[in-house]
Amino acid sequence: MSLGEFDLIRRYFDRPVRRSPLGIGDDCALLAPRPGMQLAVSSDMLVEGRHFLSTTPPEALGHKALAVNLSDLAACGAEPLAFTLALALPQADERWLADFSRGLLTLADAHGIELVGGDTTRGPLNLCLTVFGELPAGAALLRSGARPGDELWVSGTPGLARLWLEVLRGRLTLDAEDFAATRRAMEWPQPRVSLGLALRGLASSAIDVSDGLLGDLAHVLTRSAAAQGASQPWGADIAAAALPRHAALDRQSADRRLQCQLAGGDDYELLFTAAPDRHAAVLAAGVAAGVAVSCIGRVTDHPRVRVLDAMGQAIVASWAGHDHFG
Amino acid sequence: MSLGEFDLIRRYFDRPVRRSPLGIGDDCALLAPRPGMQLAVSSDMLVEGRHFLSTTPPEALGHKALAVNLSDLAACGAEPLAFTLALALPQADERWLADFSRGLLTLADAHGIELVGGDTTRGPLNLCLTVFGELPAGAALLRSGARPGDELWVSGTPGLARLWLEVLRGRLTLDAEDFAATRRAMEWPQPRVSLGLALRGLASSAIDVSDGLLGDLAHVLTRSAAAQGASQPWGADIAAAALPRHAALDRQSADRRLQCQLAGGDDYELLFTAAPDRHAAVLAAGVAAGVAVSCIGRVTDHPRVRVLDAMGQAIVASWAGHDHFG
Repeated sequence: MSLGEFDLIRRYFDRPVRRSPLGIGDDCALLAPRPGMQLAVSSDMLVEGRHFLSTTPPEALGHKALAVNLSDLAACGAEPLAFTLALALPQADERWLADFSRGLLTLADAHGIELVGGDTTRGPLNLCLTVFGELPAGAALLRSGARPGDELWVSGTPGLARLWLEVLRGRLTLDAEDFAATRRAMEWPQPRVSLGLALRGLASSAIDVSDGLLGDLAHVLTRSAAAQGASQPWGADIAAAALPRHAALDRQSADRRLQCQLAGGDDYELLFTAAPDRHAAVLAAGVAAGVAVSCIGRVTDHPRVRVLDAMGQAIVASWAGHDHFG
Repeated sequence: MSLGEFDLIRRYFDRPVRRSPLGIGDDCALLAPRPGMQLAVSSDMLVEGRHFLSTTPPEALGHKALAVNLSDLAACGAEPLAFTLALALPQADERWLADFSRGLLTLADAHGIELVGGDTTRGPLNLCLTVFGELPAGAALLRSGARPGDELWVSGTPGLARLWLEVLRGRLTLDAEDFAATRRAMEWPQPRVSLGLALRGLASSAIDVSDGLLGDLAHVLTRSAAAQGASQPWGADIAAAALPRHAALDRQSADRRLQCQLAGGDDYELLFTAAPDRHAAVLAAGVAAGVAVSCIGRVTDHPRVRVLDAMGQAIVASWAGHDHFG
């Protein structure tokens, strides 16, 4: 890009740092973790046509690019500290930059996370964010701590973003209100940072639901069993009726609803486990964080993941991959 | 990408961590800085056709992607600790991955820096690395500490990568030996990490030379004067004869040689300043780090950057932008 373009870009992103000793403008930024704290780090790369549509409003894109990274910090129970942004742009379009940076920095301010550095280049549109969070040594929520008997929980109402995708794919129509709600879920996900912090010392494992609840659950069950020396993954029994349902999902067929709830994607809710005797404390953590949390099932020591109907019978869904259903 | 492709990619990058509490595989990686240490952070994004040619061997690309980031840590005097890699690939080509990861991880091992996380997606080829280094609070070498009277130093022999580009652009030819040397400079830059560490407490400012010596010097002079309350940038007098010359540059015309040395790019040498009474100590630091260092001039309190011939007359070069020459 030309010098003028770099100046233009800098205008939208270069802000003074408050918590970090050094921000944008030198070879490196400097972070000063508090004594005894570890740093949680996560990188995500978003590519047009794959992670977002060319029609996504730039303000929503700025929001979502940071939100999906904050969601990783939330899943670890880390407190957001700082982030870097590397940006490849086909051209420096001032309107686009203004809208994108507003979406990005508004969410950053809401979570007290500051932009400390990055890179800009001309190229096919690509956003790479790296986020840093702080947490006490040993306090991180990991994927590997779930034990048989633990209750399985999820925040919010997964499935809305997938429902919106189904509309885009021409498979169904929604009324204006439901369409707006599902689109908001896809484009403006709210990372569950407060909930992640409230679950420290309470949840036995956590993951953020980005690729669909069952797929992400499989990561937890596999890693937990391996970390605990088991020869095969843990399993889970999920009560279909316990899955939290947004009104827009309630108006769908049971099969489509389950597909969206369990195999959706782009939910950015927290899926976590906790010992049964922490049930009331988990509910209280949800209240304190202002996020609904639902107990949807239980971790098992048999290796299957089953979704059960009200009679306790396993539901065999037409859309489900055989990996997920025993 | 398909699950199989992700597995393939993981095979080349997923290695156990040694210094960090948690590496690849969870929502976040965990870094544990030693007590009292700050973290230096830098992100660079490399795009095909802009930062490297489609003909660059993938092993060299892996090396260079990390080298340019290590060079940022070197310029701050930070000790390499960990890095993340986000990768967009048009397809998962096993041969490419094997070569790229070998180049990347060989350099990582040489500098004791470990890969702790990242992301992979299908898309136009794009590499985004974020590196983390450790350093004691207050010890970072910054761009903002140069003072009038300080000596100006550079490591190695800048200009070779630019000379190679001139060959590619059909503007000159080189014999086989010089061609190999210049290509090596472009594709296999050696980050000056040891030198950066040796300059802590010694250099008053430092920057890595990635966009050409005069351009990067301008950043130092501007930021230093601003940080010290001056109303205009500091300047510099550079002695053309003091610029370190690789044999391949020696065989070029004086004008072309100066162009490569001063306005080249992709050098990844350190440009730094130090008080004159540290002259012997800087030379000793170069010896200790195994890198030649050359004193090429001096910072001035007039705002011009002048390149002087042996008679002390300013050289007006045909290729130089007016920004750099008073």
